Amino acid sequence: MSFREKYLAAATRGRTKVCVGLDPDIQKLPEGIEKTPEGVGRFLCEIIDATHDLACVFKPNFAFFGALGQDGIGVLREIIGHIPNDVPTILDFKAGDIGNTAEKYAEMAYDVLQTDAVTVNPYMGFDAVEPFLRGKERCVFLLCLTSNPGSADFQRLETADGPLFEVVARTAHLWSGQGDCGLVVGATHPDDLPRVRQLAPTLPFLIPGVGSQGGSAADILGQAGDSYGQGVLINASRGILYASSGHDYADAARKAAEELRNAIEGN
Amino acid sequence: MSFREKYLAAATRGRTKVCVGLDPDIQKLPEGIEKTPEGVGRFLCEIIDATHDLACVFKPNFAFFGALGQDGIGVLREIIGHIPNDVPTILDFKAGDIGNTAEKYAEMAYDVLQTDAVTVNPYMGFDAVEPFLRGKERCVFLLCLTSNPGSADFQRLETADGPLFEVVARTAHLWSGQGDCGLVVGATHPDDLPRVRQLAPTLPFLIPGVGSQGGSAADILGQAGDSYGQGVLINASRGILYASSGHDYADAARKAAEELRNAIEGN
Repeated sequence: MSFREKYLAAATRGRTKVCVGLDPDIQKLPEGIEKTPEGVGRFLCEIIDATHDLACVFKPNFAFFGALGQDGIGVLREIIGHIPNDVPTILDFKAGDIGNTAEKYAEMAYDVLQTDAVTVNPYMGFDAVEPFLRGKERCVFLLCLTSNPGSADFQRLETADGPLFEVVARTAHLWSGQGDCGLVVGATHPDDLPRVRQLAPTLPFLIPGVGSQGGSAADILGQAGDSYGQGVLINASRGILYASSGHDYADAARKAAEELRNAIEGN
Repeated sequence: MSFREKYLAAATRGRTKVCVGLDPDIQKLPEGIEKTPEGVGRFLCEIIDATHDLACVFKPNFAFFGALGQDGIGVLREIIGHIPNDVPTILDFKAGDIGNTAEKYAEMAYDVLQTDAVTVNPYMGFDAVEPFLRGKERCVFLLCLTSNPGSADFQRLETADGPLFEVVARTAHLWSGQGDCGLVVGATHPDDLPRVRQLAPTLPFLIPGVGSQGGSAADILGQAGDSYGQGVLINASRGILYASSGHDYADAARKAAEELRNAIEGN
């Protein structure tokens, strides 16, 4: 099943647009979990068990596993294997490189780690993105307008065709003719979301920046949803993973995911 | 010793501006080397032994290790440990993410893998770059004008302050006040190198694209060197690693590195 079919099925089944971000910071593990790579693995498997019916997608963040060294990559593989087959996975990696190198990253993400989708930085252009496109099977989420303050440094630079992030949105829409693409657009830019949606009417948007980064969940569907009221995957990482630092972390994570789901749906 | 001191010492000692890129493609390993992660490790250690006095820096490319899974990260750590202490290492990663994630990538690169420098994609702006700056100890090479054809897609977009890559060059020069920065500029753009040097007069340039990608080594120093005739690190990966597919691969790699060194120096 393609990424898109899988995520839409999960979204419909769970009436959810929540993307559960898996950013396991060893220092923030709750009580009762050993601060080791094994502890990280156990913690994330419990989070996955507690939230999978509320998630339309899981998004492991490569950096947090890479920082654990070799064992971290083993844990990453293990937890991806633990995610139920009917909920897709986006590897949040944000790399992108010349063709022969991008091929290797695609191999790592799709073949070794068995993820359904990736995040890629568009700065290097089409031949850095192409190896990640595998027909309509997978999906490449291109950074467009990111949630952080530094997004203004380059992404808002004016060009003859509007600010850079608009050019990226338009270009991703074109590229999606050759494979499935999506866009990363931060919830911290509510005024820009409708414009990005206009430029890329059919692309799924991965939307970080709700909660700890300050974006509001309640209005996102109106700002960024497609004409079917779909097309948004709203990420929360810290707000779910570290909802409680006590022994009730799994219940607290479920509750946080449920609250986010309800806030998005407006009830 | 800081990255900059270390690389200048190695460059002076070996009269060399060669950066040996370590992109180990398991399918391309020469005769007599087992096509396993262990084989990759053995192969690269021999390449390092054969070229270290001709290299001012080594540049392992993360993708090629990541594609080998968990064992690949073990090999990456092993070969970085094998590089002599007086030759610095750039982890070629090209990621970049919001602050708390970038912190984890910096931890992976500097603390776990013990590299002296990294490549980072500038698209997400300053707060995605800052965690990699550690005073003047390390060095962050920002993608500016990359060697691939797709570099034209966004990097050459015109803004009010010139094409995007010029804005990046100017900005990196500013940021280098807060830590050491360098730029990635492809040898495939000889006409643009002098302009980038003008905008970033003191930054080291990591220059890929010589050889398999078509750039010429002989003129780079004139096009991109700083006012001391320094400041260029000219990368060759495939041209050195796979100089021979036979048992003489180490000698052939040394010869290729030596020829590149001499071509750069103009003799």
